[in-house]
Amino acid sequence: MKIEEAQQAIKEVLPEKRYLHSLGVADTAEKLAEKYGADSEKARLAGMLHDIAKYFSKDELEAIIRRRTDIPDDYLDYSDKLWHAPAGAAYVQERFGLNDREVLSAMTYHTTGRKNMTKLEKIIFLADYIEPGRDFPGVNEVRKTAGESLDEAVFQELQRTIIHLLEKRQSVYPETVEAYNDLVR
Amino acid sequence: MKIEEAQQAIKEVLPEKRYLHSLGVADTAEKLAEKYGADSEKARLAGMLHDIAKYFSKDELEAIIRRRTDIPDDYLDYSDKLWHAPAGAAYVQERFGLNDREVLSAMTYHTTGRKNMTKLEKIIFLADYIEPGRDFPGVNEVRKTAGESLDEAVFQELQRTIIHLLEKRQSVYPETVEAYNDLVR
Repeated sequence: MKIEEAQQAIKEVLPEKRYLHSLGVADTAEKLAEKYGADSEKARLAGMLHDIAKYFSKDELEAIIRRRTDIPDDYLDYSDKLWHAPAGAAYVQERFGLNDREVLSAMTYHTTGRKNMTKLEKIIFLADYIEPGRDFPGVNEVRKTAGESLDEAVFQELQRTIIHLLEKRQSVYPETVEAYNDLVR
Repeated sequence: MKIEEAQQAIKEVLPEKRYLHSLGVADTAEKLAEKYGADSEKARLAGMLHDIAKYFSKDELEAIIRRRTDIPDDYLDYSDKLWHAPAGAAYVQERFGLNDREVLSAMTYHTTGRKNMTKLEKIIFLADYIEPGRDFPGVNEVRKTAGESLDEAVFQELQRTIIHLLEKRQSVYPETVEAYNDLVR
């Protein structure tokens, strides 16, 4: 899938604000890939597409997750805010024939993370958090860390994300804690 | 095992401060059991014994964990501050022939919690946190909640404990997050 096709595809399904966020993630991911020695074209493509399923209906997301043997069923037991990530990867594979495993896994884990994340997974996970359009307490500290260490920046993002979920009394996907524990060590 | 034997056993292996903490947990657990309809004798016994292995050497704790098929091996991958809980349960079973499953599981899960906790497990978990000798920020709020709802108090303890670990950049045992998620729902 070419980057222009990806951009066109998300423009058709995302509201303006989310579309601009996706362009920001694509740019940020490309820069992080250049800095940390990952494939910058794949980073740009995964960043562009990561939220493609964000505005699919709950029913549509659930149907995708249920028919895919590569998405754990317990995903549906956790917040529906997580569903668009693996469902989006499944969708671009089914709809556009995108079969690049690195791009697909970076899309799949962009919200939860997991243990033993690939470099591209870390880059999309981080770019989603720090792209220029993001504005929340602490984002500048993580942006600064992203200029120094990819692992430390991903660690800080995991730490802050889990604390935020706990403070809001929301459930925490187990793989997110595994990702955190993995980087503690 | 009688409560007097238990008290004597911990007096022999615990320093004064930890011994007094154990008496506090036994008292608090007994009261919580009366309030929430659990067996108050078992609560007192489990509270008395919960930290019996707290001052065993790391090697001794590791040896107990390795020889027990009922303690997951991955326990040793996490903080050694967790080890005394299942090791203590194994020890009282082996050394004193204490075979009450409810008491043993309350000892085993007093530090980590787990999903689907029994009432006695919740009581020991909570009593350990709020016994009168404890003094840390927020403890009074949890004490107050403990007078109103066992589940909500355990939830608050899990929430605060996990946040505390995250802020200190320490690993979080997965069953603790499962316990938290279980009570979110």
